Amino acid sequence: MHKGAAWIVTVGNELLIGRVVNTNASWLAGRLTYLGYAVRRIVTVPDVEEDIAEVFREALARADVVVSTGGLGPTPDDITNIAFCRALGVDPAVNEEALRMVEERYRSRGYPLTPERVKMAQMPPGARPLPNPVGTAPGVLYEAGGKVVVLLPGVPREMEAIFEGYVEPLLKSRGPPVFFAERGLEVRGVPEADVAPIIREVLRLDPRIYVKSHPRGREVEAPLLYIHVYASAFDRGEADRLVDAAVGRLVQLLKARFGGAVSISEERRLA
Amino acid sequence: MHKGAAWIVTVGNELLIGRVVNTNASWLAGRLTYLGYAVRRIVTVPDVEEDIAEVFREALARADVVVSTGGLGPTPDDITNIAFCRALGVDPAVNEEALRMVEERYRSRGYPLTPERVKMAQMPPGARPLPNPVGTAPGVLYEAGGKVVVLLPGVPREMEAIFEGYVEPLLKSRGPPVFFAERGLEVRGVPEADVAPIIREVLRLDPRIYVKSHPRGREVEAPLLYIHVYASAFDRGEADRLVDAAVGRLVQLLKARFGGAVSISEERRLA
Repeated sequence: MHKGAAWIVTVGNELLIGRVVNTNASWLAGRLTYLGYAVRRIVTVPDVEEDIAEVFREALARADVVVSTGGLGPTPDDITNIAFCRALGVDPAVNEEALRMVEERYRSRGYPLTPERVKMAQMPPGARPLPNPVGTAPGVLYEAGGKVVVLLPGVPREMEAIFEGYVEPLLKSRGPPVFFAERGLEVRGVPEADVAPIIREVLRLDPRIYVKSHPRGREVEAPLLYIHVYASAFDRGEADRLVDAAVGRLVQLLKARFGGAVSISEERRLA
Repeated sequence: MHKGAAWIVTVGNELLIGRVVNTNASWLAGRLTYLGYAVRRIVTVPDVEEDIAEVFREALARADVVVSTGGLGPTPDDITNIAFCRALGVDPAVNEEALRMVEERYRSRGYPLTPERVKMAQMPPGARPLPNPVGTAPGVLYEAGGKVVVLLPGVPREMEAIFEGYVEPLLKSRGPPVFFAERGLEVRGVPEADVAPIIREVLRLDPRIYVKSHPRGREVEAPLLYIHVYASAFDRGEADRLVDAAVGRLVQLLKARFGGAVSISEERRLA
């Protein structure tokens, strides 16, 4: 069982000449899986309007949720919003709310609103802008016929911030209910770099498990990590069991690898 | 101008749940660009026969060269060769040469030829196996109607070895002639890890530039790197100019970053 089929569309010539590894696709794939979706296809296309429009048409015909990254900025090759309008067969229109978002960003730095910047506020009529807390280009949310399309910028931290702030809450509320469970651990005495391979091992247990580590101490002298373990399932008990299994495996691997050097305790309060 | 359109197809559930970052796609994209092809699309699909067959049908209709990775091994979810036959509308057949390759690999380790292992020798009639120097599953080369399809395993070092050994020479010989130029540098006094960001900077000059660094000395006490710079173009003089520009930028950045600590000389003999 899953909430529906998802497609990920990543736009950018830099991906097609092999200069950039597509970490946006794997990040989104992990998050959509955790949210209960089955990611059925990831497609990368160049900054060419017809190529982008074509993949959106294919995706709209076959997926319930489509998330794209890239091509929302102010340069002439940023055309994902325009190409998406073309895929829908509608004319792009300036969204007033989006225009205010873009204008505020630039005005606060003393820059005028040029046509390239206004372009970032264009979207299909009926679409909704998603605030970008760390950059200038708003995301775009389009819902029609039970389908959701989200356009996100290609800069990873902008993409992640918009997804976590606006897309994740929306997707959680759609489709059959998904239950989430989480636990937090405080881990002292081991540097984050040494914990990374152990986390990768824990993630192999189940695709619905998600682990995030936050370094808090000084990396060399007094390393302190908060490790949050999340899991999702279509049943509350199953989500709890997955988190418990992941925490159990994590503790086992940390002790096997670091012995008495590591100290682990349940975190008192989750961030 | 380019030699034709290329598609890259990467197969594997691990990519669609976000557990693995698709470095195979970026590696292949870089090499195909260097060989003169325009990579127009990269598609990732799950280990599902109909999904794989469908993307091959789409690719055959729109690309001149199609390279896939993943799904050639002995486990039940390795089905790329079978799905490719389905896309062509033909029955898979055991290729005798491929069977000998697989058999030799296993026999040399004292393992019998099970049905799962025989499966690795199945391909469309008329296809040709490509020897895998570092693993068990042969690659598959299929040519028809002026198009080339290559199926490669998903393990990066196997994929790279087959591509470099058999696919690259074939693709060099096809389409309009592409000229290649290369130079080699010996760089003493800087660890490879510190050179990596500089190489990334050099690569930004032009997509047809390709840089490979080989550590030869002891990384900490006496670091010695051989850095090979390659470029391709549809004109010999242009290829030479690209390599010279890349070497010039590399030397400039190394000196700016490391000053007197680095010593650079033209390598006497290219590997």
